Amino acid sequence: MREQLLAVEKVQAIEWRDGALYLLDQRLLPHRQVWLRCDTAAQVVDAIGDMVVRGAPAIGIAGAYGLVLGARVRLQAGGDWRKALEEDFACLERSRPAAANLSWALQRMRERLARLKEGDDALALLEAEAVGIHVSDREANLTMAQLGMELIRRHQGNSQVLLTHGNAGALATGGFGTALGVIRAAHLEGLIEHVHVDETRPWLLGSRLTAWELAGDGVPVSLNVDAAAAHLMKTKGITWVVVGAERITANGDVVSKIGTYQLAVNAMHHGVRLMVVAPSSTIDMSKESGEDVLLEERDGCELLEVAGQRVAAEVHAANPVFDVTPADLVDYIVTEKGVVERPDNTKMAQLMCRKRLH
Amino acid sequence: MREQLLAVEKVQAIEWRDGALYLLDQRLLPHRQVWLRCDTAAQVVDAIGDMVVRGAPAIGIAGAYGLVLGARVRLQAGGDWRKALEEDFACLERSRPAAANLSWALQRMRERLARLKEGDDALALLEAEAVGIHVSDREANLTMAQLGMELIRRHQGNSQVLLTHGNAGALATGGFGTALGVIRAAHLEGLIEHVHVDETRPWLLGSRLTAWELAGDGVPVSLNVDAAAAHLMKTKGITWVVVGAERITANGDVVSKIGTYQLAVNAMHHGVRLMVVAPSSTIDMSKESGEDVLLEERDGCELLEVAGQRVAAEVHAANPVFDVTPADLVDYIVTEKGVVERPDNTKMAQLMCRKRLH
Repeated sequence: MREQLLAVEKVQAIEWRDGALYLLDQRLLPHRQVWLRCDTAAQVVDAIGDMVVRGAPAIGIAGAYGLVLGARVRLQAGGDWRKALEEDFACLERSRPAAANLSWALQRMRERLARLKEGDDALALLEAEAVGIHVSDREANLTMAQLGMELIRRHQGNSQVLLTHGNAGALATGGFGTALGVIRAAHLEGLIEHVHVDETRPWLLGSRLTAWELAGDGVPVSLNVDAAAAHLMKTKGITWVVVGAERITANGDVVSKIGTYQLAVNAMHHGVRLMVVAPSSTIDMSKESGEDVLLEERDGCELLEVAGQRVAAEVHAANPVFDVTPADLVDYIVTEKGVVERPDNTKMAQLMCRKRLH
Repeated sequence: MREQLLAVEKVQAIEWRDGALYLLDQRLLPHRQVWLRCDTAAQVVDAIGDMVVRGAPAIGIAGAYGLVLGARVRLQAGGDWRKALEEDFACLERSRPAAANLSWALQRMRERLARLKEGDDALALLEAEAVGIHVSDREANLTMAQLGMELIRRHQGNSQVLLTHGNAGALATGGFGTALGVIRAAHLEGLIEHVHVDETRPWLLGSRLTAWELAGDGVPVSLNVDAAAAHLMKTKGITWVVVGAERITANGDVVSKIGTYQLAVNAMHHGVRLMVVAPSSTIDMSKESGEDVLLEERDGCELLEVAGQRVAAEVHAANPVFDVTPADLVDYIVTEKGVVERPDNTKMAQLMCRKRLH
């Protein structure tokens, strides 16, 4: 499966080349493929805040590289570079606080920094750490793809109709994607009859990114408005909802793209299974439950305007970006460390004690 | 309440003046208020098909006037004008088949036609029938507004947080609106703390029309993406979902704007009451259940393009316009003939036997 997946890889959205970070500008997809070059931590902060790069694992990887860029500037400036670097840590951490993977990646960078010894090439070692984060996310995608695909095979064994929301694909990660990694692997194994993709307002992540990724891989796919999901569950024989996550708390609550909660309630109502696919770097054992997570709210203009043109009446718009799906609505959490069925505190703690499967 | 409502009336979308039908072009709202004049049945058919006028009761009224316009042309042409008029009946009937009110209104026109006697001024009598349909829809709105408002007062008695979907307002009817009529009346009675409005893709009926209507009346209102509704139910203390309907079947199933079903499932999950507000002309006792209703599917380009620009990847889009909310998810159906709590076959049949309350 690993080799098969690698053989069909098409999309990459993050490249580290010649000491610079290149990001595929996701605001312009699918019509234009423009790469943005970042040479400073501040540029990476802006790229994350402006959604040039999005998706929790991808944000974590970009943050780690951003820290490397920050370290280079601070080292060149001389003086107490480690103290100065704290500013970059802080700015990067704040750039998209909901993504657990961002604080996780920055924590890894901080720990690497702490382990530096006299005479070490600090920049080279930090760069190696960031590359390590990137590479391990890729590997995690491959493992999760296999595990998630096996769940579908175990439950049904023949081709299924799935639904996904948001974009948990190659564009959101360092590799094949989390939810879309599972869908890609299942497609390779002949387990996909059709994938319904929520357009995912307000950014149309489904229309612009997920549909583009899946169609590019030849997966049978169609778009629908987000509000049609329950109707499709009732009328189209959907058996699985497969999504990614922004943060998973110690009790198995899942913070994910706004609308995931609504889908989860409807999945339960229709006897459709909900699979959440996320690397263990998304799991935040420091938060007891979803209640403890501060949920990002963005500017209402993202709803009120389309392509810079006002479409709505002169009213306020609430624009919550994420919601919390309580653990008891989740059938499976698939990580690179293994699968948790019907998550709770005990199972999540057991999972996080495990080493990686591979 | 009737006088209070009439005193604050602002929006009208259908006018019959000097033998012509004027429709406020709802595709251009809220930024431009353009009236379209129709002088023939074919123009009305196009206006309905192209969504110049939408909303089941409004479509019914427009259809009745369209038939009058058709009759005038047929009478002028001479010959067997009644036979020729059948063509207009058929075209109007097909223009938006989901709206029960359209076939209901055309059936009333057909019955009036059948009652014509030798020497009658056919055109004047058909015109009077259409005006009667228009006026009685206005009156029905006023009655439903009062009945729905009283339900909120009976259950809570103080100001509440509501959610609505689509546009079931003045723009969708001949008067104050069905769902929005109830919200307007409740606002006048101090029973509205806040109204959350789903933007309602793909046409953004919520953003463009409902938010515009409610803000114009000074109702505290905010927009949200459709997928945020469950999150708002959980976090914002919503107690009622109030919506309109396209067709209600003999068992109390409700065909309504796509996404209503998803809301209904979530309302049940959150202990939020669902109130469907629709005149009895929306009730189709000839259909046993929602299963018997052919649900309209429109062109996928309505999702794939925004303001004429392609936003989505090159994939197919499923664009179901309506869905079915089963009767057992409905708390109240409010009509001008009275209120049905927890609808079923018996209660719906009893309701339809009643005379109007006023």
